[in-house]
Amino acid sequence: MAGGSGTRFWPASRKNRPKQFLSLASDVPLVRQTFERVAPLVGAENTWIVTTKDTAELTRKAVPEMPAGNVLAEPMGRDTAACAGYACEALLNVDPEAVCIVLPADHVIGEEDRFRSSLAAGARHVEASGGLLTFGIRPTRPETGYGYLEIGEESASIGDWQVHHLKRFVEKPDIDTALTYVDRGQHFWNAGIFAWRAQDFLSEVRRQLPLLAHGLAKIGAAFGGSDAERVLDEVYPTLQRISLDFGIMESAETCWTIPVEYPWSDVGSWPALREVLTADENGNVERGRVLSLDSSNNIVVSEGPVISVIGLKDIIVVATPDGVLVADKEQAQRVKDVVNTIKERGWHEVL
Amino acid sequence: MAGGSGTRFWPASRKNRPKQFLSLASDVPLVRQTFERVAPLVGAENTWIVTTKDTAELTRKAVPEMPAGNVLAEPMGRDTAACAGYACEALLNVDPEAVCIVLPADHVIGEEDRFRSSLAAGARHVEASGGLLTFGIRPTRPETGYGYLEIGEESASIGDWQVHHLKRFVEKPDIDTALTYVDRGQHFWNAGIFAWRAQDFLSEVRRQLPLLAHGLAKIGAAFGGSDAERVLDEVYPTLQRISLDFGIMESAETCWTIPVEYPWSDVGSWPALREVLTADENGNVERGRVLSLDSSNNIVVSEGPVISVIGLKDIIVVATPDGVLVADKEQAQRVKDVVNTIKERGWHEVL
Repeated sequence: MAGGSGTRFWPASRKNRPKQFLSLASDVPLVRQTFERVAPLVGAENTWIVTTKDTAELTRKAVPEMPAGNVLAEPMGRDTAACAGYACEALLNVDPEAVCIVLPADHVIGEEDRFRSSLAAGARHVEASGGLLTFGIRPTRPETGYGYLEIGEESASIGDWQVHHLKRFVEKPDIDTALTYVDRGQHFWNAGIFAWRAQDFLSEVRRQLPLLAHGLAKIGAAFGGSDAERVLDEVYPTLQRISLDFGIMESAETCWTIPVEYPWSDVGSWPALREVLTADENGNVERGRVLSLDSSNNIVVSEGPVISVIGLKDIIVVATPDGVLVADKEQAQRVKDVVNTIKERGWHEVL
Repeated sequence: MAGGSGTRFWPASRKNRPKQFLSLASDVPLVRQTFERVAPLVGAENTWIVTTKDTAELTRKAVPEMPAGNVLAEPMGRDTAACAGYACEALLNVDPEAVCIVLPADHVIGEEDRFRSSLAAGARHVEASGGLLTFGIRPTRPETGYGYLEIGEESASIGDWQVHHLKRFVEKPDIDTALTYVDRGQHFWNAGIFAWRAQDFLSEVRRQLPLLAHGLAKIGAAFGGSDAERVLDEVYPTLQRISLDFGIMESAETCWTIPVEYPWSDVGSWPALREVLTADENGNVERGRVLSLDSSNNIVVSEGPVISVIGLKDIIVVATPDGVLVADKEQAQRVKDVVNTIKERGWHEVL
C-alpha cells in the first residue's frame, strides 16, 4: 500500500512526492526499502504495489525490478479497505488461491530476516486455517499514538512464532492505559501488516461492506482486459471510503495475531525520526549538511541547503530549496495546517 | 563606504554579496538606498563609493546613474581610515577644495529631507570652519551596542541645526551608564557619518598616522594615470589597518557634532530588523512568503523558500534556497561562528 497525501512530511514530501518516496533514515526511498525487505521472501514478480495514478510512474522508477503491471494505479485514493480489495481482485485474476501479505510501503523495520520469517509463518497459517491475520509489535514504550491489538489464547505455533486469536482492536489509549499495556504483555501495536487468502478477504468485504464488494467485483471482472482502465476510472471514485481496520478487521469473523518484536516504526511524523536515527551526544538528530551551535534535542533535516541552528532545543527544522519548516517538537503534527494554509494562499508550487 | 565581509547576515549575505546589497527593509539594496538618499543633495556625478574589487561590478550595476569611475575599488579591505583616506585623495584630484560627506552604504535612515538638510549644514560648517564633523543620533533607548559622542558647548547654528564642539568619544557603555546618557541628553549615538574638507582630513592623517598618509599620498599621486592600478595594488595591501574612529577621530584637533533626531539604524544584525520593519500583532517581523502558527516575537526572513514556523517565539529564521539560519534571538551574533565553521568544513559554495 503506497498511497498517502504527503502532508505530514512537508516540506520534504509533496503532493506528487509523498512519504514513501522519502528516504528519511537511509539513502533509499521507503517504498524501495519495503520492496527490498519482502522481495527475498516472495520474489519481485510476486510483489505488487497499489498507489495512485499521480505517483505510479515514480513508483515504477523506484522499483524497476518489478513487472510494470504489478503497480496498480488507483484513479484516486479511497482509503485502505478499497486499496486492499483492489489488490485482492487483481491477485485472484493471477491465482485463485493467492495468499497475500498486505503492508504499508512507508514503514521502517529492522531485523529483516526475523521480519520475513514472521511473514512466512503468517502466510502459512492463513493458507491452512483461513481468517485474517495481523502482526502485533510488542510495545517498547507506552505509546498513545497507536491502536493496539489485544491477543487471546494461543492457537498454533509455526516455527518460532505463536499465532494467537485476536481478542479485540483497541483505540489509541491514554497514557495510564498505555502503561498497563506495556506491563501486562497482552497488547501489541497494530502495525497495519496483514496476511490472508485473497478469497477470504473479499468474502469479508462481501459480508461487511457489500456495496464496496460490488464495486470491487466489477473492477476485478474487467482486470487485465481492454476495458480495465475505463471500468477502473468509472467505478473506483464511487467506492466507499473506509479504512481496512475499521471497515473490515474489527468485525471480521476470524482474526489472528502473531506477536513480533523486531524494531518497527511507522515514522508517522518528523519527531518519529528520533526512533529510527541515532542522536548525537547532545540529543540532536541530523540529516544532511547541518551545523548546530549550543543546541540540543533537535531534529534537523536538510534536503539541500546548509542549515545552521544556534541556541535552540526541542525543535524541528526541515529545509528543501523551496520550503522550510521550523516547529516546536510538540506541535509538529500541525504541519498539516501549514499545508492547508499554503493551499489557501495559492502557493501551489510548494504543495 | 561600502566594504564589509557579509558574515553577519548569513545566509542572505555572502562573501561576494555583502550586506549593502541586501534590501532588508525595502525592495531596494541598501547601497542604492544610500545613493538615492544623498544624490538629491550632491548629484549622481558627485557621489563616490569605495568598495572592494570583488564587489565593484555589482556596485556599478546597483547604481548605474553614477559615473563608473566614481566606484573606487580597494584591492582588499583595510578598514575605514584607509577607505576614507583613499576617497579623499581621489577627490583632491578632482577638486582641491573638495568638501566631503562620508557615510556607510548599509544603514537605514528615515525623514530623508531632514537628513539631507543636516548633511548640507555640516558640509557648510566644515567648509567655513575646518575640522572634522560628526553627526550624533539622539538615543531613543539605552543602547549598549553603540559608541556615543558626548557633546560640548554650542559653537554655531546653521538653519535648524546646532553645531557643538565634540567633547569626547565614549566606548560602548553598560546599561546603567546608557540609561544616564538617555536622561541627560548630552550623549548621542556615533552613526559613523562625517563631514570634512578632504584636505583637512588628510592633514589629520599626516599628523596622526604618517605611514598611512605616506601610502595614501602615493595612491593619490598616481590616481587617474596609467599607473594608477599598479600603484594601488602595490601600496593598498601595505596600508595600516585601523578604524576611522579610533585612528583619526578620537584624537583629531578640531571635532564638531551636529545632534540629529531622524530615525536611524545601522541594522547591525538580524535582530535589528525589528528597528526598521513593523511587527504584526503577535510581534512577528516577517519578510517574504512566511506562515506563522501559534508563534510570537520572531524575525522570519525568506529570500525564496516558503517558511513555516509553528509554536515558537523569540527566534530568528532566515532562508535562501541554499542556506538556512535558525537562531535564538539572544545568540544571533554567533552567526559569525557559523560562517567560520562553514569555511572549516569547506562548504565554499554557501560562503
